Amino acid sequence: MSNEKKPVRIALLGGGTVGGGVIRLIHGSADRLSSRVGAPLEIAHVLVRDRAKTRVPECDASLVTTDASRVLEDASVDIVVEVMGGADPAKSYIERAIAAGKSVVSANKFLLAHSGPSLVRLAAERGVDLAFEASVGGGIPVIRTLRDALTSDQVESVHAILNGTSNYILTRMRAEGLPFESILADAQRLGYAEAEPSLDVDGHDAAQKLVVLAMLAFGAELDAAAVHVEGIRSIDAVDFRFAERFGFNIKHLCIGRDRGDRLELRVHPAMVPSTSVIGNTNDVLNCVFIKGRALGPCLLIGRGAGEMPTAVSVVADIVDVATSRVEGKAGSSTRGIRLRERRLVPMEEVESRYYLRFDVADQPGVLATVAGALGEEGVSIEQMVQEGRASAPSTPVSVLMITHLCREGAVNRAMARIGRASFMKAAPRLIRIEGV
Amino acid sequence: MSNEKKPVRIALLGGGTVGGGVIRLIHGSADRLSSRVGAPLEIAHVLVRDRAKTRVPECDASLVTTDASRVLEDASVDIVVEVMGGADPAKSYIERAIAAGKSVVSANKFLLAHSGPSLVRLAAERGVDLAFEASVGGGIPVIRTLRDALTSDQVESVHAILNGTSNYILTRMRAEGLPFESILADAQRLGYAEAEPSLDVDGHDAAQKLVVLAMLAFGAELDAAAVHVEGIRSIDAVDFRFAERFGFNIKHLCIGRDRGDRLELRVHPAMVPSTSVIGNTNDVLNCVFIKGRALGPCLLIGRGAGEMPTAVSVVADIVDVATSRVEGKAGSSTRGIRLRERRLVPMEEVESRYYLRFDVADQPGVLATVAGALGEEGVSIEQMVQEGRASAPSTPVSVLMITHLCREGAVNRAMARIGRASFMKAAPRLIRIEGV
Repeated sequence: MSNEKKPVRIALLGGGTVGGGVIRLIHGSADRLSSRVGAPLEIAHVLVRDRAKTRVPECDASLVTTDASRVLEDASVDIVVEVMGGADPAKSYIERAIAAGKSVVSANKFLLAHSGPSLVRLAAERGVDLAFEASVGGGIPVIRTLRDALTSDQVESVHAILNGTSNYILTRMRAEGLPFESILADAQRLGYAEAEPSLDVDGHDAAQKLVVLAMLAFGAELDAAAVHVEGIRSIDAVDFRFAERFGFNIKHLCIGRDRGDRLELRVHPAMVPSTSVIGNTNDVLNCVFIKGRALGPCLLIGRGAGEMPTAVSVVADIVDVATSRVEGKAGSSTRGIRLRERRLVPMEEVESRYYLRFDVADQPGVLATVAGALGEEGVSIEQMVQEGRASAPSTPVSVLMITHLCREGAVNRAMARIGRASFMKAAPRLIRIEGV
Repeated sequence: MSNEKKPVRIALLGGGTVGGGVIRLIHGSADRLSSRVGAPLEIAHVLVRDRAKTRVPECDASLVTTDASRVLEDASVDIVVEVMGGADPAKSYIERAIAAGKSVVSANKFLLAHSGPSLVRLAAERGVDLAFEASVGGGIPVIRTLRDALTSDQVESVHAILNGTSNYILTRMRAEGLPFESILADAQRLGYAEAEPSLDVDGHDAAQKLVVLAMLAFGAELDAAAVHVEGIRSIDAVDFRFAERFGFNIKHLCIGRDRGDRLELRVHPAMVPSTSVIGNTNDVLNCVFIKGRALGPCLLIGRGAGEMPTAVSVVADIVDVATSRVEGKAGSSTRGIRLRERRLVPMEEVESRYYLRFDVADQPGVLATVAGALGEEGVSIEQMVQEGRASAPSTPVSVLMITHLCREGAVNRAMARIGRASFMKAAPRLIRIEGV
């Protein structure tokens, strides 16, 4: 019955693997989606950059085009689905689609992180939907959880593992005791890491996703470049062994915390309890731990990337947006987002517990100097461990400290002082501890 | 602007703690909810059984009534929110509300498990919404994940911890090495278990929730009584110690698995890898592990009960349903549910790995008899451990087996044979192993 209705026409921008997955899912569950939406879904165009490279063999070749204007100016198109990624021309295409009154589904984390608020406003003004579940956490329904499930609650904090490549590398470093470089090389060989791994292992991909989550969780409209970002290159295999001694695992975390007037947003490796759920989210899995004032803890875990998980999220958005259009009422998808400028807490003012590692000459007086410098900066030590004794006088020994909660500025000052001491055999190492 | 719109009028059935939480959230975020819905939300009535016992001091006393007809026949009421629980009169109230064209939000797992399909059909026929996020997993957005996020996917399996009391007891039994009875008594003292704990610890509460999930995940319309249910009373503290030796933890699981023509639905304790996320979901937390064909694994964890988490889910449903009404388009909430009769796989035909414990006299020939009986039934043993030697000839020793994948019927036959042997000091124990 519903199939007699006018179909909802969809233009796909991007003919990569995710686009192929979307077409496959739409064709594979056509009846179900049609009864859900109240009208059939129809792929109207697939815009690609290069016909030869398109990976969507599932659809009629006549739908594939390289002519953006033909797609964006087609008045019969209801929904534009952007799965091409990157800044441009994705942004201008989306803006043109919104201006033309089409609803938009995007999987583009870069664009959402950098232009999310302006696109949300554009869509709201034009009364069309803008949905972007697939931009963060692949198949994990984190956007709709923040937008819909938590609609009456206030998010206090978000802790997330949002980069599968980094999580995969850390998981293997811990299991195999091997250094970052060798696991990275193997991950590249196996296809778990890109030839140019920086976006993943230096934390930028994760930071973009955190900015998108912060827009929903905290209404944060902010400069993505202001977020403190550290990747995982500085983690040594030995830190996993030491972490274990204190009951911790090391994960690459995205952290957002509402501090009332200001917001804490940071991306860096952190020690988390090894019996916690986040500490056991391994391999390429992503995890988002939301703490709501009324809800309490809520964790979502799943595949953060990959063609089909991402396509599932894109299609879920298409169904939402298509349903609204069939019912003649687009525009509600962005209503839950209440944007406002949020200032960030500078890292120096962040409070945390810290794991500190000092590789020192095995000589008398070292501990007194280290403990003294920390004490003078007001950093109080919860636990201290000195690793064995040096096998030879020239071999450094590791002194490990776990601090109580303190200001990062104080720790940094103490670390700088200790770093200058003659007994230091390497730069001191610091890993923040999060009790999630 | 939106506040000039005609308010959406809500009748609350039930004046307990969840009802109080709902009122608090609606009042506490009135502006946000109003801009989200497109009209203000207004509590029109609070139906209670006993005025003296009502726990909703947040609302105007004049709204509180014991007159059901006054509430259900009020034509100005748009949404009926049922947070009273139980079979009757909740069911008849909901049916009257649907018949009168009101949309319904319910947190009632018992009702959904027993009458879900008929209520879903009623709502669909009448073109009103029926939402029930809070009926399973408290604040965990599992219903909307199954209904919306996975709309284009096929659910292959669901593994869930859905009873917080049982999970709390198992967590403490493992940590403290104490027997079920003493932890239960302490949990009752602390308010984590009811004075009449059977609904929780014997698995019935969890089974009801599994039936609700199965309706969404598998379109299953089935007799809730047909689900195989075991509680946690049979777990001994010593099993946690043995489980650990094999790398397992023991959790009380709800399992649903699509076997194509038939469905596997069962609720029982199970060994799960101790490094898995589900194995680290502790205390009162609930966990739902969904495996989608395209999505892969997706886990949701959070508080499965409690006034405020449950209220957050109720309000999320109210917002969805209210938005549809304001837009003049109710009825889409049940569209994703495609009901059909599903036959269950009998337990005898279920395939699993098993942990078996035999408390035997420490005498020659025992192992040969045990292994022989298993072998004759085609049960192949993956690992075998005999616990130490008996300190005295009369003290039993434990023989532990981990089997390969086999049919439950075969294991049961072997267990019955072994159970009759003269060297058996107690009934043999069986715990299924799930590789989640």
